[in-house]
Amino acid sequence: MRATIADIATFDGQQVTLHGWLHNRRSSGKLHFLIIRDGSGFIQAVMSKATVGDDAFTRAAHLGQETSLSVTGAVRADERARGGYEIDVASLEVHGDSQDYPITPKEHGVDFLMDRRHLWLRTERQTAIMRVRHEVIDAVRDFFNGRGFILCDTPIFTPAACEGTSTLFPVQYFEDTTAFLTQSGQLYGEANAMALGKVYGFGPTFRAEKSKTRRHLTEFWMVEPEMAYADLGDVISLAEGLITSIVARVLDKRRTELQILERDTTKLEAVTAPFPRITYDDAATILREKGLPFAYGTDFGGTDETVLSEHFDRPVAITHYPTTIKAFYMKPDPQQPDKALCVDVLAPEGYGEIIGGGQRVDDLDLLLRRIREHGLPQEAFEWYLDLRRYGTVPHGGFGMGIERCVSWICKLEHVRETIPYPRMLYRLYP
Amino acid sequence: MRATIADIATFDGQQVTLHGWLHNRRSSGKLHFLIIRDGSGFIQAVMSKATVGDDAFTRAAHLGQETSLSVTGAVRADERARGGYEIDVASLEVHGDSQDYPITPKEHGVDFLMDRRHLWLRTERQTAIMRVRHEVIDAVRDFFNGRGFILCDTPIFTPAACEGTSTLFPVQYFEDTTAFLTQSGQLYGEANAMALGKVYGFGPTFRAEKSKTRRHLTEFWMVEPEMAYADLGDVISLAEGLITSIVARVLDKRRTELQILERDTTKLEAVTAPFPRITYDDAATILREKGLPFAYGTDFGGTDETVLSEHFDRPVAITHYPTTIKAFYMKPDPQQPDKALCVDVLAPEGYGEIIGGGQRVDDLDLLLRRIREHGLPQEAFEWYLDLRRYGTVPHGGFGMGIERCVSWICKLEHVRETIPYPRMLYRLYP
Repeated sequence: MRATIADIATFDGQQVTLHGWLHNRRSSGKLHFLIIRDGSGFIQAVMSKATVGDDAFTRAAHLGQETSLSVTGAVRADERARGGYEIDVASLEVHGDSQDYPITPKEHGVDFLMDRRHLWLRTERQTAIMRVRHEVIDAVRDFFNGRGFILCDTPIFTPAACEGTSTLFPVQYFEDTTAFLTQSGQLYGEANAMALGKVYGFGPTFRAEKSKTRRHLTEFWMVEPEMAYADLGDVISLAEGLITSIVARVLDKRRTELQILERDTTKLEAVTAPFPRITYDDAATILREKGLPFAYGTDFGGTDETVLSEHFDRPVAITHYPTTIKAFYMKPDPQQPDKALCVDVLAPEGYGEIIGGGQRVDDLDLLLRRIREHGLPQEAFEWYLDLRRYGTVPHGGFGMGIERCVSWICKLEHVRETIPYPRMLYRLYP
Repeated sequence: MRATIADIATFDGQQVTLHGWLHNRRSSGKLHFLIIRDGSGFIQAVMSKATVGDDAFTRAAHLGQETSLSVTGAVRADERARGGYEIDVASLEVHGDSQDYPITPKEHGVDFLMDRRHLWLRTERQTAIMRVRHEVIDAVRDFFNGRGFILCDTPIFTPAACEGTSTLFPVQYFEDTTAFLTQSGQLYGEANAMALGKVYGFGPTFRAEKSKTRRHLTEFWMVEPEMAYADLGDVISLAEGLITSIVARVLDKRRTELQILERDTTKLEAVTAPFPRITYDDAATILREKGLPFAYGTDFGGTDETVLSEHFDRPVAITHYPTTIKAFYMKPDPQQPDKALCVDVLAPEGYGEIIGGGQRVDDLDLLLRRIREHGLPQEAFEWYLDLRRYGTVPHGGFGMGIERCVSWICKLEHVRETIPYPRMLYRLYP
């Protein structure tokens, strides 16, 4: 009977066939201990010379790492085994051999591994990260779908820039037209919210930033909810609900993977609502008290974010940044018009910003003024201005970067391991 | 109490407040009949002069289409009403006015509507299509997630072409590097399947085709499952399972939307497994018998697809195309090496191809030969060849275009209405 390692427990005592690859092998006299992986997990298969005979036993001694093979044998519970089960091999069939597999159990440099990302993905650690990523994305969708949000995809090809053009990738569209790859679907999300009430976009976004930090990719995935008839408080509650729901889901479904990644899960278990909510001014005070050379009125730098995010045991929501350092569409606080009704959420443990959003300008005249003040071409935003011309309503939303979220949940050194094929300043292969 | 139109039935007899927009209004003496939409649905609110007073009644007579407003009143069941309920208005508050809204209930031309897509999306028909799209995508994800597939995103920026470069969009990456926007994540999906067993990619793909047909977009979404240890039969079964599962889900959850779209649901109810399975040769015979000028050995054209897809009452799987007209990675049938172990699934009712896939070449030498025969640069495929060097296994998968699937399920004239912001040869705005 064909089985997978993930559901091996349901076959205890039965004869099964596993289709997979040889991950590792050690031998001890008349026994081979074969670690088999099949994509769903890893298991030890024990092959005894007495059972399979001399010829088969000798052949197995020469199988290279990543040889594809099928193993048939009885499933046996063993509490010392990883996953709680082993296979006693009755027979073994080789499909494709594998000589000199480049990624061995020894340490390799990052560039070496990145050049072989298509093979690196086969390791236990990388498959665990991919499964956490899968779970995070599924949790995101369940969260929004369960709350009446409609998935409404925003375009990748855009005719104009959302927030300036310096970090946009231009694409030669047809004839003499230039399109830009989206940096954010937010403006479209606002139009969608006016049509469908509560929406979210979920797709890749692109930033041509020449940053080489552990937080930057040129291509990354973002989820962007947007709600009509919503204010900053609604946006913060939604962000809080989303993050707690993702963390709870991964803790519930991906314990094994977190264990493989040696993640301290008590840090994740602390991630419950309510999150601390502080203002930009409060954050500036914290940075000053810690002796950082922070210039009031500027945006937080990488180090500032790290320090702020280490200051709390759970994500922190920072609101009311100066309007001068925020995008043109951020609504000023009527009580203090030099501050925006915006929120950034920083993940704890030094991970920094994973969410940015807020309430949008809903007044036509103010939006026109802001577009002028930012030196943006009004004609490119005529359709966006229509949303304020025809039945404007208070509304808001945010964007959450999937890779930064996964990086934090898995506690990785660098965001490059959170996506199957990371794209960076000097990385476009494989 | 704040309510939404979608869950109005749970508030029968209660006083609620709805936040939405004025979709339409007609008046009859001392009554206004206001059609309110809130993104979750449409409902009629009845305003009586006797209840709200002369002033409020007169003001309401001048509200323009798409005025944003809140209506407070009692929910009353009325079986003649759309959705089964009406609201008796006690009070009405206007948030943002709306004068001369461009999209009126009269007929508009397609270009006029496409230029105002951000507003066109507010109509009952377009919101119904978006909800079906949402449901199709959710059904796709549930289908794969429930079968142990791991979502594994393939890159948008690619260094080389999957199937030739003539329909690729080039992007200026950093410095002198050119990246191409993905046409298909399949090759990466194969690598992912070797790591995780069963995977799927789900994201936007791009084709720089100068086609102006009802089936073409330059930017469209595709789901691409890939399975290790799978053959053509497994691929066909998976495709069949996916399509029947999507159709059943939409029939179950989106009856209201299908009704708005005036979809004949009996046609969808016929979509059950097994689908007819025919070969390319069988299809050629059908076309010949119908008198079409089909040249054996070429690919099916738009008209051929339409005719074939009208020949069956459910999707049809067509296998064994000549290898000469299929991509280099398609595995030849060992029994008849001039035919590929491939499958296209055509949707019925004339909609044509929605799925294309098959079993992949798993032999290193054959793959090398095919790359040479297709005049492709081997060095660009070294990483892909590694999948045959290190533990190759039989494997396969397919790609399904979301927009074509939604177009068929909604029975639309043109695929442009299936995505919020369609991108076509002459369409990049809004």
